[in-house]
Amino acid sequence: MKIIVLGAGLVGGPMALDLAADENFEVTVADFNKSALNKLAAGHKIKTQVKDLSDPRSVTNLVKKFDLALNAMPGFMGYQTLKSVIEAGKNVVDIAFFPEDPFTLDAQARQNKVTAIVDCGVAPGMSNILTAFAASQLELTQKVRIYVGGLPEVRRKPFEYKAVFSPVDVLEEYTRPARLVRNGKIITLPALSEIETLDFPQVGTLEAFNSDGLRSLLTTVNAEDMAEKTLRYPGHAEMMKTFRTIGFFGTEPIEIGPNTRVRPIDLTAKLFFKDWKMDTGEADFTIMRIIVEGKRKNQHKRFVFDLLDRFDPKASVHSMARATGYTATTVLRLLAKGLYTKKGISPPEYLGRSKDHVNFILQRLKERGVVYKMSER
Amino acid sequence: MKIIVLGAGLVGGPMALDLAADENFEVTVADFNKSALNKLAAGHKIKTQVKDLSDPRSVTNLVKKFDLALNAMPGFMGYQTLKSVIEAGKNVVDIAFFPEDPFTLDAQARQNKVTAIVDCGVAPGMSNILTAFAASQLELTQKVRIYVGGLPEVRRKPFEYKAVFSPVDVLEEYTRPARLVRNGKIITLPALSEIETLDFPQVGTLEAFNSDGLRSLLTTVNAEDMAEKTLRYPGHAEMMKTFRTIGFFGTEPIEIGPNTRVRPIDLTAKLFFKDWKMDTGEADFTIMRIIVEGKRKNQHKRFVFDLLDRFDPKASVHSMARATGYTATTVLRLLAKGLYTKKGISPPEYLGRSKDHVNFILQRLKERGVVYKMSER
Repeated sequence: MKIIVLGAGLVGGPMALDLAADENFEVTVADFNKSALNKLAAGHKIKTQVKDLSDPRSVTNLVKKFDLALNAMPGFMGYQTLKSVIEAGKNVVDIAFFPEDPFTLDAQARQNKVTAIVDCGVAPGMSNILTAFAASQLELTQKVRIYVGGLPEVRRKPFEYKAVFSPVDVLEEYTRPARLVRNGKIITLPALSEIETLDFPQVGTLEAFNSDGLRSLLTTVNAEDMAEKTLRYPGHAEMMKTFRTIGFFGTEPIEIGPNTRVRPIDLTAKLFFKDWKMDTGEADFTIMRIIVEGKRKNQHKRFVFDLLDRFDPKASVHSMARATGYTATTVLRLLAKGLYTKKGISPPEYLGRSKDHVNFILQRLKERGVVYKMSER
Repeated sequence: MKIIVLGAGLVGGPMALDLAADENFEVTVADFNKSALNKLAAGHKIKTQVKDLSDPRSVTNLVKKFDLALNAMPGFMGYQTLKSVIEAGKNVVDIAFFPEDPFTLDAQARQNKVTAIVDCGVAPGMSNILTAFAASQLELTQKVRIYVGGLPEVRRKPFEYKAVFSPVDVLEEYTRPARLVRNGKIITLPALSEIETLDFPQVGTLEAFNSDGLRSLLTTVNAEDMAEKTLRYPGHAEMMKTFRTIGFFGTEPIEIGPNTRVRPIDLTAKLFFKDWKMDTGEADFTIMRIIVEGKRKNQHKRFVFDLLDRFDPKASVHSMARATGYTATTVLRLLAKGLYTKKGISPPEYLGRSKDHVNFILQRLKERGVVYKMSER
């Protein structure tokens, strides 16, 4: 089977390697970054194509030659890329986490007989799958809490943060208002709101704040109270709030001199990102805790899922890339095996409704060292 | 006597009013800001001139028509303005606090028979006068500490800070390395370094950090250990260090898009200053503590000078303008009375060496409600 991975970034790369290790797959990676492609191809059974993926027609023409696609582009290019893949009529797993509503592509995907599973990482991704799974075990879902973060092992001031993702997408988490569910209704709170601290075994105290990560879960899971909160080392959120308050995340150009107009966010991004870039070989970890509470047969039930995944020093793969990418490659295997065939746009929670699918995914993640612990009481 | 005040800002204005109340003076204020001039002239015995004071020749020509000048321009324009006044051959008191070395104008001032007293505010200014006075009472000066700050009474996050001065000059305090004296030698430490907290009666806990305010004191007072530290509400310095560390105070243009290059400091200034501008009628206070320790006749001596001055709600004059401006107008009176005649550049400590001058200044400041308490033991 011929697979095309779109994007050779810090997540795209490890996904390509994971797929290339499978004798059923013939893997090609496309990116405009030649050196990233060369690094990937060296010593691996991977083909590469240097391509400007910002050109939609180029994406469609490329993807047509493959059986399955994996969209690992940055969020701001993600929607257009997914649209181009759908236009090529190929099934696709997507981890671009674009801000647009994927369901606006649903009709087109169904028309082209395409199965497109979006948001297929950790959160969104496994958070949707496990929340939907727990909710499917309940008659009434009362409370859902998703705590999730990817952090560097070594804490360096002032940020104590690094990302394997496109950092522009991280800034989105700090600016886009968070949608959550209270008393059965969708409400909106500012990003970075309701900061609380939590203690985690082997990790210590982290802070959690509202972020806009529920996305499709807002409507696909019927809960009374549901929120996603992002985890950081304590102090980070307050610092980001300060930047936001002063105006450094502003998207309206302001005049700073004769003939010079600047969007504050553009300078801020430039200054932040030199510190935020996760270096090759730098140790990180991914932590997630999902709590789902509700009622079954008039009894209170509580599910807790815990993930603590760490950097793989042997293969030199970042934990955030492992936890995100291996979810996507596992779901791609579901598609490749024909085990999931629903046409149109599928958020990951559609998979969570089937115990077989959940077990398939958890088992393969476990084989790759990404272990979810579940408790039920 | 005809006085010209250069600059009608938040300090220039109250100085002009203080001088205009003196029947010996005929006061003119020059600025390019017409509305600031109109506000000042309304109901007061003050003449105004709308002038572009960034043009050196315009300054020289203007000042020639007066007997005495007061330079209240922002720091970045201050040196050039002082030079223009010296070229006009007129005695001058200067509170521009420019970063350049004023002694580079000394020869020219002596040649033109000009008395120019620079840095004539609170600190630099009264800090120089009182330090030099205390040092003149000692045979050996061991330790000098100058703690000083101007702060808003109402603390509002994130900055808990406002300025009556040109905010660019405040940013200078956060970036320009601080020169101080340790073991009898001049050393340089980063701005914002060595943060400590101190408690002040009626004010509470403030933080203090090294700033480059000693200037001429570095060479005119022979001390073993000497430092000036700026006072802020706790947390401000750490926040400013964060901005500095990330690069927001950078003065090298960086590329943030095709054909767009920006000096980070320019955007930062724009975003900070909308919050830093002290509003009309907004209450502030000025706090200074000077400690001078040393030996006289083999006995340990310790002088402490304390200032706590508050906003004047009746005249609606900010404390920072009172404490700074009335020092300058008092020293101008010394000049007008012919009590100080040394030609060339004089830093304020030259006045501090004379008990008569110190008493003259302290007495007139006290009449205006700016009260320095001195203890000696």
